[in-house]
Order: sequence, then C-alpha cells, then structure tokens
Amino acid sequence: MRSALYTGNSTIEVADRPPVPPASGEVQIEVAYTGICGTDLHILHGTMDHRVRVPQTIGHEMSGRVAAVGTGVTGLPVGTPVTVMPLRWCGACPACAAGHQHICHRLNFIGIDSVGAMQQRWTVPASVVIPLPADLPLTHGALVEPTAVAVHDVRRAALTAHDKALVIGGGPVGLLIALVARSVDADVVLVELDPHRRAIADRLGFRTLDPAHDDLAAEVGAWTGDAGPSVAFEVSGSAAGITAAVDLLAVRGRLVVVGIHSQPREIDVFRFFWRELTMVGARVYQRDDYDTAIELLRAGKVAAETLITHVEPLTNAAAAFEALRAGGDVMKVLINCQETS
Amino acid sequence: MRSALYTGNSTIEVADRPPVPPASGEVQIEVAYTGICGTDLHILHGTMDHRVRVPQTIGHEMSGRVAAVGTGVTGLPVGTPVTVMPLRWCGACPACAAGHQHICHRLNFIGIDSVGAMQQRWTVPASVVIPLPADLPLTHGALVEPTAVAVHDVRRAALTAHDKALVIGGGPVGLLIALVARSVDADVVLVELDPHRRAIADRLGFRTLDPAHDDLAAEVGAWTGDAGPSVAFEVSGSAAGITAAVDLLAVRGRLVVVGIHSQPREIDVFRFFWRELTMVGARVYQRDDYDTAIELLRAGKVAAETLITHVEPLTNAAAAFEALRAGGDVMKVLINCQETS
Ligand SMILES: [Zn+2]
Ligand SMILES: [Zn+2]
Repeated sequence: MRSALYTGNSTIEVADRPPVPPASGEVQIEVAYTGICGTDLHILHGTMDHRVRVPQTIGHEMSGRVAAVGTGVTGLPVGTPVTVMPLRWCGACPACAAGHQHICHRLNFIGIDSVGAMQQRWTVPASVVIPLPADLPLTHGALVEPTAVAVHDVRRAALTAHDKALVIGGGPVGLLIALVARSVDADVVLVELDPHRRAIADRLGFRTLDPAHDDLAAEVGAWTGDAGPSVAFEVSGSAAGITAAVDLLAVRGRLVVVGIHSQPREIDVFRFFWRELTMVGARVYQRDDYDTAIELLRAGKVAAETLITHVEPLTNAAAAFEALRAGGDVMKVLINCQETS
Repeated sequence: MRSALYTGNSTIEVADRPPVPPASGEVQIEVAYTGICGTDLHILHGTMDHRVRVPQTIGHEMSGRVAAVGTGVTGLPVGTPVTVMPLRWCGACPACAAGHQHICHRLNFIGIDSVGAMQQRWTVPASVVIPLPADLPLTHGALVEPTAVAVHDVRRAALTAHDKALVIGGGPVGLLIALVARSVDADVVLVELDPHRRAIADRLGFRTLDPAHDDLAAEVGAWTGDAGPSVAFEVSGSAAGITAAVDLLAVRGRLVVVGIHSQPREIDVFRFFWRELTMVGARVYQRDDYDTAIELLRAGKVAAETLITHVEPLTNAAAAFEALRAGGDVMKVLINCQETS
C-alpha cells in the first residue's frame, strides 16, 4: 500500500509500505481522507523533530471505513464509517487520576508521537475508533477532529447566546471556532490579517476585521457598546493577538488560549486584576467534544464544503503540504488516501 | 476633631478639621479603628497621586459606631457598630450594567478617590455602611474589609476542600487568604521571603516555604504527589510569583491574581495551553463577601488577635506608617482613632 512519510529535511515522500494487520484489540481502517493540520506543517518543517521518529507517516484528521479487526474487537463491523480520536493516555499520572486524560502528562498523540493516518490502511487501537453516522460524507468526517478542537475551545469559554466573541486568527481552527460559537448563537467577529482567509470568513457570513488597517479598539467599541467582547479566542499564536485580547475584553471577559505560543508573552497582569479577566488554556478535546462535533457536521452547521478548499490524491501529498504552506486561497486541504495514481 | 492627612511628599500630618455633618442620606461615624493597608503605603509614597487630592484623609479599613444620621436614613440608630464597604459605582457603565458594580469603569474607592476613615468622625453615604454584630470587638471589625478581599479571592478560585492551595506572599492579604482557604478545608502552603512574616504564618499553623532557600519545585512536588497545587494565589506582586505559580500548578490549575503588578509580566502562555491552566483576576469584593467576612471573624476563623500586631493612637499615625514600611515583626497595624493625645 502507499503511505506519505515525513522523512526529515522538510520532505514528504510517498512510498510503499506493507499494511499492518490488526493485533488483538486493534482495528485496521481503510483511510478515506486525511486532513493536513497546522501541526503537520510544523512537523514537516522540523519544529517537532523531538517527538517524531523519521521516517514516519503523519496525519491525525481523518475518516475511513473499518477494513479488518483483531480479536476481541466488537461493535465495529467491516465497512463501518469511522474517525479516530488520536489520543492515548497513561491512566496513572496526576492528570489521568484527576479525570483529565486528554491532557495526560505522558499523552501519546497518534500521528505525532506515533504512526499517523496519511496512508491507505491505518491500524490503531479500537479504543480510539469512533463510528460516524452513515449519512455523513467521508470528506466531512475528516473534519470531525478539528471541529472537536473548536467545540472544546468553545466549551472552555462557557460560551452562550449572551456572549460577544472575538476570534483572533482566521485559519481553519479560527473559522471552526467561529462556526461553533455561532451554533450556540453567540455574536462573533473575526480578526485576520490575510485577505484570502477574510474572504472565506466573509463567505461563511462572518464580520471580519483587518488588524493592519482597521482601528480594532474603535470597531470593537462600536460593536460592543464600549463594553468590549465577553470572550476572545486567541488562535493566531502571536504576541499581538494576546495583547489585543487583553486590551479589548470586557470586565470579567474570558480569553481562551488556543494558538501555540512558542515563547513567553508580556501580559498586562494588572488588567487581569483591574477588570477581573480570565485566561484559560484549551488543548485538544474530550470524548463529548467528538459527539458534539459529529452532530454539528451532520446538521450542516460547520459549512464543510466552504472550508474544504482542496482535495488532493495521496500521490500529491508533498505538493498539498506546499500549497497549504504557501497560503493564498486555501483553507482546509484533504488528502484522498485511496487515490494513489 | 483630629484627622490624619496625607499632605504629599511622603508625609502624614495629624491636624484639626471640623467634622462633616451628615447630609440627607449620609451617616456620620465615630471611627473606632482604621487599619493601614498596603495601598495606604502606596499613597503615602506618592504612587497614587493621580487619584488622591492632597491634603486628604486616607484609610478605608475601619470600624466604628453611628454618631449621627442625615434625613432619610433608617435602620442605623446612633451607637450601632458598623464598618464600611468603601465602593461607589456609577450604575451606568458596561460593568455596572452587567452586574459587576464592584469593578465599575468609574469606581470611586472611598479613602483613595475620596475622603477616608483615619479621623475621629467620618461622614459617608448610608449605602456603604454595614452593621456589625454587637459581639464583634471593634478591633476585629476593622479587619472586615481586608478579610472581604480574601473571601473574594477565594471565591474567584472556586476553592473547595479538595484543593491544595499555594499562597505566594505572606503579608496581611496573603495570610487572610490562607485563613479563608483553611476555613473551607483546603490544604494550604504559604510562600514568603520575609522570616518575620513566616514566623507569624507559623503561629497561625501554616506550613511555609522560603523561596530563597527551599527548592519550591521539590517541596511542592512532595506535598502534591507530583501533581502540583490545584490553586495558586499570587499576592506578592512580583514577576517571580507569577512564574512560580505557572510552573507549579497542576493540570487545570487556577491562578488567582491578587497582587498589583505595576508592569507587564512575561508569562509562559504555552503552559496555559498545555496544562489547560486558568488565570483569573480578583479585585476588591462584592456585598456577599462582606457577609462571609463578618461571619468568619465572628467565628474566630480569622485569628484577628494574631494578625493585629500593633494598635497605635491617631496622633502616632505617621510613626505607624513608618513601622509598617520598615517591616520586621509587624503584620496588621490599626490606628485607634479616638486616642488623640
Ligand atoms: Zn496520564
Ligand atoms: Zn459603573
């Protein structure tokens, strides 16, 4: 079978690999689609080499059908449409003991810390396999994982219909957060530098602001009656994003940290005191977030057709990564893992 | 009557001033005791000159008895023991509209933004006067305001008996937080550089750590089974306090910002993401916090006799400020506002 392998040196190669037969308790999935995530780009460019053993098949946003099961696996007949919640926890650390398995101190993120989905057949523990509704297109099924991220972020914000939410950063995760926030009837404004990304947000019906040209304080003040938004999602990973959120938030406002900040940020802690702000980190998802994500996709609230701008054959994996890196009119890129010629 | 006035240039002078008769809706209080707060020290040293109009009587932690009332004031007969919740809000700003009057955008903090309590008679709006139980000593009554701060901080942390709480900074507010945290059966450890302050914390039965000599990570690891504390109160106002809290907190841990951080702090935002931490600001108090503070003082859970290390006559106000500034074996200093010779 064909598999897209990260081989180091910013290189993805598609090579032949034998499929792994499912051992006891495992499931072999015929992968339909694997999405490329920002984290996959980071892997390709070497910033996660401390976690990835080359050559390694990466990818963790996926959909497919059960191809074979090992002994002891029940409830997953061959042909069942599925996705994967790619987390394995130790069950013994303080995080696991406290019931926060998704942030286990020794979390194994499948597709980063172990073999991923960008191949024709993928073998994983049955415990991470989640059935999909039969009527959900498998292209949409590949969006369940990133949608679950957004659901988790929105849940960490305790977002309700009374909230005005500022989403800072309009890539796939930012747009998914905006969509999930809208699904609970929050009032959403999105901040994004890139005009292509703003155009996609426009198509999804969101009001957008360009921090390079718009006066954020004035625009947000007009929007919120000078109160400031009650919630901000920092998805840009930038120092400016954190600063804007802290400056703009209303009293008792909640800042959800979603983006990866590779260095410490200078934060106006006094303002946290003065306005009784809250900053809360949100990482991956829990099982309930998957259920909600699947419901939202099935109900058409995630606008999968607009978000998925490219579907590329597995053989073109390297070019697909490059297209995503180069930017422009691109949002979510899926790899069709059965198209190999 | 005698009044302690901040006159600028790091100076407190005791001078004669006519008492202010209570206008309609006002109450004149015969002040028994006024505590000196860290904020009062900041005022004395000029860092709050943008808010204080010299010469001004300062002070906002107090107890006393109703001396006279203006027209329209009911329920506060002469002689009633009282304290004051020294906040006046506008009622119209976004914070007030959202029900967060205590962090009103135009908050008037009585004793900073307007005339304070360090005088024989103090006239305030009836709306800020809070009766005290007849059996609460008035020395203890002067601790209601700082205790309400601690109650508010503990409430913002949503602290329960399941929590291990690290209190960083062992001045009056830090010790009050530790005491209030113990009143809900949380397991408390206090971090403080000053040996005199640690000695008082010892007397109150708290385990203390000295960040200059103890290995915080090792000690906290041993205390929490390598999980980290579930809550940290940053009361020191130092960069090191913030860093220690962020480094030490358990997954899903809550950092409550109590101390004043006069400059932005470098914060490991990635760790907020990775461990799903929360940082929450806590400022002053709400009415319920006063009720809880009074209950705790009345029940003897605040150890007022240990916290109050000095009671000085009003005539010695300047020396009392200096003793507090100089440090050593001093915790809470009260001014006896009726002792004027
Ligand atoms: Zn674990
Ligand atoms: Zn107000």
